[in-house]
Amino acid sequence: MAYHLLQRDQPGAARLGMALSRALELILHCERCNNFSEKQVCALCRSPRRDAHLLCVVETPADMLMMEQAECYQGLYFVLMGRLSPLDGIGPKDIHLDRLLKRADDGEVREVIVATNFTVEGEATAHYVGELLLARGLKVSRIARGLPVGGELEHVDSGTLAQAVIERRALESSP
Amino acid sequence: MAYHLLQRDQPGAARLGMALSRALELILHCERCNNFSEKQVCALCRSPRRDAHLLCVVETPADMLMMEQAECYQGLYFVLMGRLSPLDGIGPKDIHLDRLLKRADDGEVREVIVATNFTVEGEATAHYVGELLLARGLKVSRIARGLPVGGELEHVDSGTLAQAVIERRALESSP
Repeated sequence: MAYHLLQRDQPGAARLGMALSRALELILHCERCNNFSEKQVCALCRSPRRDAHLLCVVETPADMLMMEQAECYQGLYFVLMGRLSPLDGIGPKDIHLDRLLKRADDGEVREVIVATNFTVEGEATAHYVGELLLARGLKVSRIARGLPVGGELEHVDSGTLAQAVIERRALESSP
Repeated sequence: MAYHLLQRDQPGAARLGMALSRALELILHCERCNNFSEKQVCALCRSPRRDAHLLCVVETPADMLMMEQAECYQGLYFVLMGRLSPLDGIGPKDIHLDRLLKRADDGEVREVIVATNFTVEGEATAHYVGELLLARGLKVSRIARGLPVGGELEHVDSGTLAQAVIERRALESSP
């Protein structure tokens, strides 16, 4: 991309440079959800259409976008902008857990959904965040782990199948 | 394979033919789990090491093998040898549901785990089987649906992410 811009599209390079510099000046972190925003409080956090009783904790803005695209969630978010990763020197302070606790304790939030990834770091983060929130008396849940939609037993890995069996759900009679 | 056997390995073809004919003569369906077996009751169903209080319903012998390989389950099985599929003319009688009900009603079984696939037919089968078993007062559960182990929000389809949020699990304080 750098070669293309320098050789074939110098005005484009200038525009991109300006845009990036401007973005760097204007971009803040939203006071409520910690996502990138140009205002103190971002549009999603200000929206009256969102359910203020639900707070979903995700690792990155990209994860939040995935949640929005799945159209399964109407609550608000908190973006950690990372995950606990002791090997990379990323501890609780680096992922703004103090701000998350303050945010979750606002009196409006009734359930915190921890939607970090199911990687080793994501799971460690979920455990740590979960314990902190539970200690404050909040209701905390974790997104489900198991077979994907359309999935067949023959084509999933053993670890996922084992989890799906361990975390099985009781069925109830339909009315 | 047929060409290879006929042209290069006629003794092998004869042996394979004999073995198949012999298998056809000897193979039965196990009286308890409906899987292929050479005896009236297969080795797994006779094993005293298995937990007779748990019964897992799978579609095929291959699915049962996957469950065994995942080493997450110590109970017994019932193999439907198919799934409900009205378009292919496969109804409840073709997947031995009468035998499943009799098997689950033996007084020993305390929970039936429905582990059919998460395909359209597998889900329909799970729903049908679940309703039948619940109507008899049995405890019925379904293996979990959600993100795979190691899975990241960015790399799963929207349908799976939506299910993972809907079927989220409450977290509890670790002791």
